[in-house]
Parts: sequence; structure tokens; C-alpha cells
Amino acid sequence: MIKAAIVGGTGYTGVELLRLFAGHSNVEVTAITSRAEAGTGVSELFPSLRGHYDLKFSVPDVAQLAECDVVFFATPHGVAQAQVPELIGRGVRVIDLSADFRIKDIPTWEKWYAQEHACPELAREAVYGLPEVNREQIAGAQLLACPGCYPTAIQLGFIPLLEAGVIDPASLIANAASGASGAGRQGKTDLLFAENNDSFRAYAAGGHRHLPEIEQGLGLVNGGDVQMTFVPHLLPMVRGIHATLYSTLKSDVSQEALQQLFEQRYANEPFVDVMPAGSHPQTRSVRGTNMCRIAVLRPQNRDTVVVLSVIDNLAKGASAQAVQNMNIMFGLNENQGLESPALLP
Amino acid sequence: MIKAAIVGGTGYTGVELLRLFAGHSNVEVTAITSRAEAGTGVSELFPSLRGHYDLKFSVPDVAQLAECDVVFFATPHGVAQAQVPELIGRGVRVIDLSADFRIKDIPTWEKWYAQEHACPELAREAVYGLPEVNREQIAGAQLLACPGCYPTAIQLGFIPLLEAGVIDPASLIANAASGASGAGRQGKTDLLFAENNDSFRAYAAGGHRHLPEIEQGLGLVNGGDVQMTFVPHLLPMVRGIHATLYSTLKSDVSQEALQQLFEQRYANEPFVDVMPAGSHPQTRSVRGTNMCRIAVLRPQNRDTVVVLSVIDNLAKGASAQAVQNMNIMFGLNENQGLESPALLP
Amino acid sequence: MIKAAIVGGTGYTGVELLRLFAGHSNVEVTAITSRAEAGTGVSELFPSLRGHYDLKFSVPDVAQLAECDVVFFATPHGVAQAQVPELIGRGVRVIDLSADFRIKDIPTWEKWYAQEHACPELAREAVYGLPEVNREQIAGAQLLACPGCYPTAIQLGFIPLLEAGVIDPASLIANAASGASGAGRQGKTDLLFAENNDSFRAYAAGGHRHLPEIEQGLGLVNGGDVQMTFVPHLLPMVRGIHATLYSTLKSDVSQEALQQLFEQRYANEPFVDVMPAGSHPQTRSVRGTNMCRIAVLRPQNRDTVVVLSVIDNLAKGASAQAVQNMNIMFGLNENQGLESPALLP
Amino acid sequence: MIKAAIVGGTGYTGVELLRLFAGHSNVEVTAITSRAEAGTGVSELFPSLRGHYDLKFSVPDVAQLAECDVVFFATPHGVAQAQVPELIGRGVRVIDLSADFRIKDIPTWEKWYAQEHACPELAREAVYGLPEVNREQIAGAQLLACPGCYPTAIQLGFIPLLEAGVIDPASLIANAASGASGAGRQGKTDLLFAENNDSFRAYAAGGHRHLPEIEQGLGLVNGGDVQMTFVPHLLPMVRGIHATLYSTLKSDVSQEALQQLFEQRYANEPFVDVMPAGSHPQTRSVRGTNMCRIAVLRPQNRDTVVVLSVIDNLAKGASAQAVQNMNIMFGLNENQGLESPALLP
Repeated sequence: MIKAAIVGGTGYTGVELLRLFAGHSNVEVTAITSRAEAGTGVSELFPSLRGHYDLKFSVPDVAQLAECDVVFFATPHGVAQAQVPELIGRGVRVIDLSADFRIKDIPTWEKWYAQEHACPELAREAVYGLPEVNREQIAGAQLLACPGCYPTAIQLGFIPLLEAGVIDPASLIANAASGASGAGRQGKTDLLFAENNDSFRAYAAGGHRHLPEIEQGLGLVNGGDVQMTFVPHLLPMVRGIHATLYSTLKSDVSQEALQQLFEQRYANEPFVDVMPAGSHPQTRSVRGTNMCRIAVLRPQNRDTVVVLSVIDNLAKGASAQAVQNMNIMFGLNENQGLESPALLP
Repeated sequence: MIKAAIVGGTGYTGVELLRLFAGHSNVEVTAITSRAEAGTGVSELFPSLRGHYDLKFSVPDVAQLAECDVVFFATPHGVAQAQVPELIGRGVRVIDLSADFRIKDIPTWEKWYAQEHACPELAREAVYGLPEVNREQIAGAQLLACPGCYPTAIQLGFIPLLEAGVIDPASLIANAASGASGAGRQGKTDLLFAENNDSFRAYAAGGHRHLPEIEQGLGLVNGGDVQMTFVPHLLPMVRGIHATLYSTLKSDVSQEALQQLFEQRYANEPFVDVMPAGSHPQTRSVRGTNMCRIAVLRPQNRDTVVVLSVIDNLAKGASAQAVQNMNIMFGLNENQGLESPALLP
Repeated sequence: MIKAAIVGGTGYTGVELLRLFAGHSNVEVTAITSRAEAGTGVSELFPSLRGHYDLKFSVPDVAQLAECDVVFFATPHGVAQAQVPELIGRGVRVIDLSADFRIKDIPTWEKWYAQEHACPELAREAVYGLPEVNREQIAGAQLLACPGCYPTAIQLGFIPLLEAGVIDPASLIANAASGASGAGRQGKTDLLFAENNDSFRAYAAGGHRHLPEIEQGLGLVNGGDVQMTFVPHLLPMVRGIHATLYSTLKSDVSQEALQQLFEQRYANEPFVDVMPAGSHPQTRSVRGTNMCRIAVLRPQNRDTVVVLSVIDNLAKGASAQAVQNMNIMFGLNENQGLESPALLP
Repeated sequence: MIKAAIVGGTGYTGVELLRLFAGHSNVEVTAITSRAEAGTGVSELFPSLRGHYDLKFSVPDVAQLAECDVVFFATPHGVAQAQVPELIGRGVRVIDLSADFRIKDIPTWEKWYAQEHACPELAREAVYGLPEVNREQIAGAQLLACPGCYPTAIQLGFIPLLEAGVIDPASLIANAASGASGAGRQGKTDLLFAENNDSFRAYAAGGHRHLPEIEQGLGLVNGGDVQMTFVPHLLPMVRGIHATLYSTLKSDVSQEALQQLFEQRYANEPFVDVMPAGSHPQTRSVRGTNMCRIAVLRPQNRDTVVVLSVIDNLAKGASAQAVQNMNIMFGLNENQGLESPALLP
């Protein structure tokens, strides 16, 4: 039985980890921390967990965390980098769901997150947890940086095209939309129900923090810099990311060849589902699951290729992908605890 | 391994059964029928099931169904009563999710459903599948009538009060609201998204078909007729029923005594969760689960007692309760396949 | 041209007043105050008002307010009572949308609002602005207390029954549900989109501040105390209140007689629409309007009478009713500025 | 007083015309037709119109329609072209909200709409009703073809860039999303509330009928063919279109110059609102209005320019734009009846 702790468990990725671990037969959650809610039972804050956990939130305590096999950070950026070094020093494995260890180029991280990085050397050593690219390194990782939600959906959509070298890597456009849970569980006016229901808008169109992460990941896949325009939008729904990706074909690749390219690339991936040609994946078809569903098409046979990629931002975009990574790191079946179908309708 | 068939699998209770059986280690779904979709793969119609089922919809065939251990009817009322007699005759166990076998008084059924009943004797023999009342009979049932969604939420809320004899059985009021999935997967104008989002309304306030079912069930519990006013409402959401129940206390029972009454009544029930005093159960806390969460209170210490009861209409209100009944009928652990926490947020 | 000021204009009732005044030919808004947003243009905060107002939020200034003909308070409770006495002293007419002047019995107000009242004598003099009951007093009012949202929908539903003396005044039950805008524009975690979408729950079931206001109003109509059980619920939608009202008939009044009772009571009311028997009013049918739509029925011909009453909580439940009251106070056509049909769909 | 008739008034553009005409002081609706609902009162079908119209739906009758000054077609494509020739022959002015007269190249129309066109010569004579481009011709039009909803939002976003010649006209990408009312008021399974709430998906990504209309309009503005990739999406909300537009700059145009370009182009347009740089227009800010709000930006100062354009699909995207066109055709103030601010929240 793997002993796991969760740091910062009062947010949506925290409760999603708890939901997933309730059905994971190899994991026992031994601690969950929150300064603000210390002493409160997790099922008081999240009644959906009544009957599943007796656990209470506790004040973070390195000694206690160090007794675990793995510690998950479900915290805002800036928190993990302050606590991780000591845990790493004590030999604990760490899976960070925040942005602290995703970017290898420290000045880039510091520019986008507007603070100094506390442990640049760990950032450089951390393994980027996108199993479809890094499965081997993940298996041996001590410090794992889980990808962001947009970066997961967008990279999985562009990877086959870049690896095959069929698109111009400077032509990437990612038009993406996220459910409101992506903004976290924080009492901000512009996240209110009454501000978002029955409305839709873009945000951070001038520059979103996930842009450098995506360009870094796709640059590695491409073997050279890529350039992407990225416009995120806020959907009047709770869970789900839909990425609509555009890029320019460098040569004449047929719809059939594109379909085949995607099917072959992901033939052995348990959590990427290439839909039949002509499909329009719905976000609800992946709700609560670790699946990414993808469709590729070439409208009017012109030279713009379109990819539709959907994930659940809290699952494959955060907590379920963290569990997938943990399964790989601990030599378990990769889909242990991640097998339930989506809740539909 | 229990061989199960589903008749009428293209509706929401059908796909919910498939979702639940995907995680049930003792059941294999061997057939799912639909005249309209015969030949279509279930995962074509419901992409959430891709990778979980290879099954195709087939034309109903009694011989094939008769080879199963259990047949689920997820059909509109009127269908099961035409097909069940032959299956019963061949010794198959039948779990009917429709209204065909819920009402014992045939003239009452025929009045509310405006058609002649095809097999009154089977209706009288059928066991009403509310495990919190009928667990023993369910274990021995060959023909099981699953309760309606509103009847489940409402009966579980009134039962402790009526059994204890503390309320006037002629004073019952059930104000209930359901998510839109309760109306089924049928292309009606007044069920459109654009007709229901950001709006709320009552319906069938003059008389809903679940009224006689509830009064029958509560009458048995009460040992004498009860009278209920029942107003259902349509919520701008997908899943969930919230019942707000009112009745008049016959004697002075304190808030504490009411709380104790409920906790004791349901102490051993795996799927009824009595919340702490002062709680307001949310429908999302039971989404996708077989749980009913209940709170009881006595506002201003007056003589009206209020009960709040929530379920997922497709789960405890239909398919998951059907699985619970099946587990009991086949001697399995009652919560086999029904253990996942709700999807929240 | 009436010069109007709005105190506390950054909330939903503030922006709703601005929306309505944009179409009101007799009113000019000369000031709108907000300490937090002083200096910000109203159309910066509310882009829907771009092109309609050049106004900026300003710090409240009694001298400036005193130059207006009427001052609207769209503030949380407790604010108006601190500022109103001086304005009243200077002869300004005041329309308070908050709860400060609704309750005549000061100890009751102080108990439910948990603070001392700053000007009890003004509270006793204030006119309660429900035009369907108090039209004459409203015309002469200097200080007008606008009814709460629930109290408006609920009182209009019970008034004909109580006035006619056909129901037991101790048997009242009000099961009501409100859109999320009713909770105001404040950054609280439990009002987030991700906490409320696709879910439904009761709140304040043990006692809501609108209860004493409703019992006071209905007591006056009844000519003696009434007793009501009131359970409010939070809907996953933005605007709208739906009240489902139950009471016990004292004598045998037919469905037809009940229908006639309501139609006669409201025959001359421009903003109460009695729907045909058998109707189920939808909240969206009154969205953005000052209308209350009502249906009355007697299910199964039993002795419980049911009333369905819908309003827009921000309109007839707050700002539009405030405009209706202003129209009456200033001798204008009562529906000036309030004539647009609802936005449907 | 202009006498107006509406053909096909049971859909969403029909009821939206009625809503708008209720507040238009120069128009009297004298007939509204529907074969299916002949004899039904409009306020029976649409309770939001109770008190505003006594009108009943009637069977279409050319003689009756010919007595009107203007006839609006709010019908599916194919209907107007069968009835318009006779009305035109009798001298009636016709405003068609359907797609029948939008496309000048008849083979293109016939290919995308999969039927023969009944009156090609009228299609060639019809004036395309985008006032921001065709105001003069609209004033003299007898047959006016109202633009589609997506075409309105998308053309208004690209026009300043194409007119100024700063983008590559073969590089256009339109990623757009619409509320569910855009799909009309028809009882289709995939438009159900339970199918669309809390989910998001693309549709018709391989080719949508609005593509040739947009390419035709932008080609005229550009003075030469344009090429656009267009992916529409279905939003879990009722009203609103959000278009996110991408194109490649041909030369180095600064963010400031782009802003100025848009502000100058639309300086005199009453219904196009260029937002300040850095804005993210929300669909709710135009709900129920004829306004198009636009923002333009150049992310990371790269050579992709992004335009965000929002409209209400039923208003500026259909019925309100039809009223704007009628105002121009009849020499009225262009914003008569179109002045109310959006309903927000």
C-alpha cells in the first residue's frame, strides 16, 4: 500500500485526488494539509466524500509528510518550491500539480510568474509528466511536474503533426475553452455563478502562463522552436477543456493520412482516444476520466489542418494525470484507479 | 458471472446501467436491445463508453433474452408488461425500471397511465424494489419493480416520520425538483436546452403519475392511507432530485429527537446518509451515486417538520437502485459496483 | 426630469436600476456612489452600459445627494439607516431597496439582523412599497421601503386567499427558489459558478430573514397573525424566483372559484398576471420585467390549495418595483419605463 | 405606422421580432403566420408576450400579406423563395431572415443547401443587409437578405483588417461559438437540455453553410477572394455568439495602429462598439441588443492578429439586425426600437 499525502487539499484538484484515491486499491491517503481548514474533516468540506474518508485537514508538517511514499502538491504556484527541497532531500517522491517545476528555463518561469524561483536546480531535474511523451523518465522520477490543463489538451493535439513534420511549426494556433473549475475554488467576484452563467468570453488573450509551457513541450517534440498563438476562453460549465487547434500543412497530406497518423501515434496509449474521422468530441464524454479524445480533419481540403481535443481539466488536466504518473512511478498498472467511464449525461 | 440483458438501451437509464456495469465485477452485459438503433454500436451512440463495450444494439429477441440470468427493462411504460410474462415463464429474473409493475391496484394504474394493464397478476406478484423497506422480499423476487425517481427520494424522507407515528398522515406535502434527464432522451421542443436553461417552472402540478405510487408505498409503511400534495418542478440542470417535504407533527417532538429518529432508522442502510442537523444536502453531493442524503429540521420550533432529501434521479432514482436490487437478488455484496464517490465539482 | 441618485451602485440591484433608467424618459441619474469604485466609470464595471452612461462612481456625499429629487439605496442592510435620516431631514425622498425599513417591530428587526437599529422612528414611518397593497400610502411617502424579493413573490400569491378568508392562516408553507443573483455580487466561495452549476440545494431552512417581513405583511392583510414555514433554495440560474405556496382551505372552494378570486383581486393590477387555470408560469417569462405571473390550483380537489408565483428577483423583486414605486410617488404613469416584454428565450 | 407581417413566427427569430416590435413605436404587427399553430394566440405559445399582443397565428395568405408594408420571413431556408416572388410582384418590401437570398452565386447556394433555387434572379437582386457595408443599397432595397448570425460577427471582425489591406486574405481562421438558440426551436434529441448542459463541442467542422456566405462578403470587401477556415461550436447557454478570429499580418502594424484602425472604421456605426485595448468582450454584454462588441489585439507582438467579436445571435445576428435594416429602408432613425441596454446579469 502506497502512503500518500496531499498538500493543499481544499481546492478542486485536492478533492479530485481524494475522489480518485477512494477507488484506487493501492493507495492510502494518510495526510491532507490546509492551514485554513486544519481540524475540519474532509467530508465536512466536501460532503460527496462522506463515508469515504475519516481524514481531517492538518497543518503541513514536513516530518509527517516525509513518512509518506509520495506527496502531492495541489497548491497555487510558489508553494511547492518552498517545501519540496526538504522532502526531496529526505527521499520522498513528489508529484507537483502546480506550475512550479514545469518550465526548464528559469528566467522564462520568473517572467511569467513574476517571482524569483526558489530552487532552479530542482526545476531543471524535475520530469515533465506527460506520459505520452516521457513515460520512461517518469518511471524513474523523484520529482514530477504535472502538466497544466491547457498544455495537456493542446500538446496531445499537436504532437503527431509535429513529430511527423507535416506542419509549419511557426503557424500554431490554439483556441481553447475551459470550464470554470479551472479557475480554482477561490471567492472572486468574476468567478461567481451570476457573472458566468449564460455568457462566454475570452480571457488572457494577450498572454497566458500556459503559453511558455506549451511552446517548451512542443519545441522538444519538434526538435526546434515552435510559435503558437493561444487564446483561452471561459465556458459556462464546470469541468472540461476543449482545444480547437489550427496549423498550416507544409505538404499535401490527405485527410486519410492525417487520420492514420493520429491513430498510429496513439495506438498504444491507454488515455488518448482518436475518434473516427468526422467526429466532434464532446467534453462530457471525458468528464471525470483521464481520457483525451481527439479528432483531426482538413476542412475543404485546404492547407489548414484542424484538431479537436477534449479532456477533463481536473482529471487528465490535473489530478487523474497525476495518478497516472504515480502509477508509472510506482510500477503499477498504468490505468489502476482510472478505469471508470465518464458520467454521461 | 451474471449474464444481463438490457431492453431499450438508448435512453438515459440504459446508458447509466452500462456505465455502472462497466465497473461491476460480477456482471457481463450480453445483449442490449433497440429496434431503432439495431446494428449501431453502443459506443457510437454514447462515446463515453468507447473502450468499455464492443456491444451493438440488437432487435429484441425473447430467445436470446431468455438465456440471460437477468433482464433489465429500461423502456417507457407499457413495453415491459408485453414482454415480461414470457421471460418470467422461462424462469428469467426481470428488473423493470419502468412504471409497469409498481402499482398493486390495477384500476389505479390504468387510470393514471390511461391504458389497460396486460398482466395484472404479475403486477400483484412483483416486488417493489425499495431495499430500505423490502430487502427480504427483494432477495427472493423473480419480478422486481424499481421505484420511480421522485418516489424514492420522497418515501425515504417520510418513512421515519410515518413509522414513528409522529406526523399526521393526511398532511403530507412533497415539493420536488428534478434535473432534465428525468424527462428522458426524447426530442421534444419543451425539453430543449434553449427552453430550459436559466429558467425554472413547476409541471404536472395538478397530478403526476408518481403520486399514486408514493401514496401506495407510504400507506403500507403507515398502516393506513396517507394523503400527499405533490408538486414537481423542472430544474435547469442534468441530474439530481431535491425533495423538500413538509408535514404536521401530531405531538411535540424536538429537533434532537427527530434527528435521532432518522439516524436510527437508517443506521444500517448503506445508501441513506442522514446529514448532521442544520445541513442542506446538495444534489451534486450524490451525482452519479446510489446515495440518498437526508436532513430533517423543525423550523422555529413550530409544528411543521421539514425534510430535505436528495438523490441522483438516474442513479438511486433508477439504474443504480436497479443494480442494488440485483445485488440483493443474486446474493452479492449490496454495494458491489456502487462504491464510487460523487463527481464533485 | 426627476434627478435621481443611487447609493451603492456596484451590486446587481444598482446595475439593474441603471438599465431601467436608461429607458425611463422622466429620470436622469445624476450620481451613483461607491467608495470602492470611486472614479471608475459605470460602463467600465458594466460594459452592457457602454454608450448609455458617462457617469462615474463617486464617494457618497450627502450635500450632493440632497440636491436630487430621490435617492435610491442599493446597499447591504445597515447602510441606509445611517444615511437616510439626514436626507429625510433635508426633504429628499428616499427609496430603500435594503431591509432597513421593512420591519415595523424594531426588536424583531434587531433579532433577525443582529444589530441595533439606528433610527426606529423612521422605520415606523416608512411606507412598505408593495403597490398591490399600499398604493395610496406609497403616493405620499417620503421614505419608502422596497419589499424583499421572496416577500414580493410570496405575498402576492397568498394575498387573495387571506383577504377572502378561505385558508387557515396558520397553515402557510412557502417553498421558494431563487436564481444566484439574489445572493448579490460578492466574491464568496459558495457562490462560485463551479459550486452551483448543475446542482440544487436549500439554504437557511431553519430561518431566513425574509420570514418576519412576510409574516408582517400577510398578518396585516389577514387582520391577525399568520404562521408560515419558509424554505428557500438556490437555483443554478441567474435571475428569477419561483414560489410554490401551500395552504389549507377552511371551506370547500372550487378550482373555478379560486381562479375567479385571483383574477378579480388583480384585475386592475398592471404587474400581476393571473395565468389561465392549469398553467405553470416559468421564471423566464418575467425575466427583466416587473411582472409577477401567478397560477392557482387545487390538486385532486383536496383541501390543500397550491399557488405558483414567479418574478424576476432583481426586477419586481427589487429594482423594477423600486421604479414602480417611484412612478407612483412622483405621479407618473405607473408603468413608465417598465413596459418591455421579457427576454425569451 | 408601418404594417408588418411575420411569416413563420413560432421560432426564436419570430418571437424575437415580436419582442422588439412591442417597443417600436412605428410598427404594427398585423399578421403572423404558422400552419401548425394557426388559431393559437402568440401569447399562449410565448407567455412572455401576454399583455403585449392579442394576435393569433394564422395560415399564410398572400392577399393578406400583400396588404402589409413589409413582410419578414422567419422561416427555414427554402420557404421564402417560394413565396417571395409574388409579394415582390405586388410591391411589398420583404426582409428575409433565412439563407435564401444571401448567396449571389446560385450554384454555390444549391451545393451547400442541397436543393434547386426557385428564383435565382431575385437572389441576384436582393440586397445583403449588413448596414456597416451596404447602408445605401439597403435604403433602396425591396428584397433584403439578412446576414446569418456567424457571418455578422465574423465579417464585422475582419472588415477593418481587409479594407486596410494589412492581413493575408488567404490566412483567415474563424473559431466561433454559439448559444443553443442558434439551432432553432425544433425537437431534436441532440439539442436537449440534458445533452448540452455542462458540455461543449464543435460541430460542422468539416464545412458549415455560413462559410460561403462569409467568404462572399469578405471577398467583396477585400476586392478579391479570401480563404477562411471556420469551426463553429455549441455553447451550453441560450443566446450569444463569440467569434475569435485569427489572421496573418502582411506588414508590421502595431497594437496601437490596429486599435485605431478599428475605432476609425466604426466611429460612426451605432451598433459596433470597439472596446478599449486589452478588453475581452462578454456575450452577456450584448444580450438582447443589436450591438456587436469588438476587441483587437496582437499577442506577443507576433504576426498573428486576433479579433474578439460578440453579438446576440437572435438580435444583431437575426431579428434586431432585421429591424435595423427595416429602419433604414423606411427612413426611420436607425436605432428606433433598438436602444435598450443588455440584460446583465
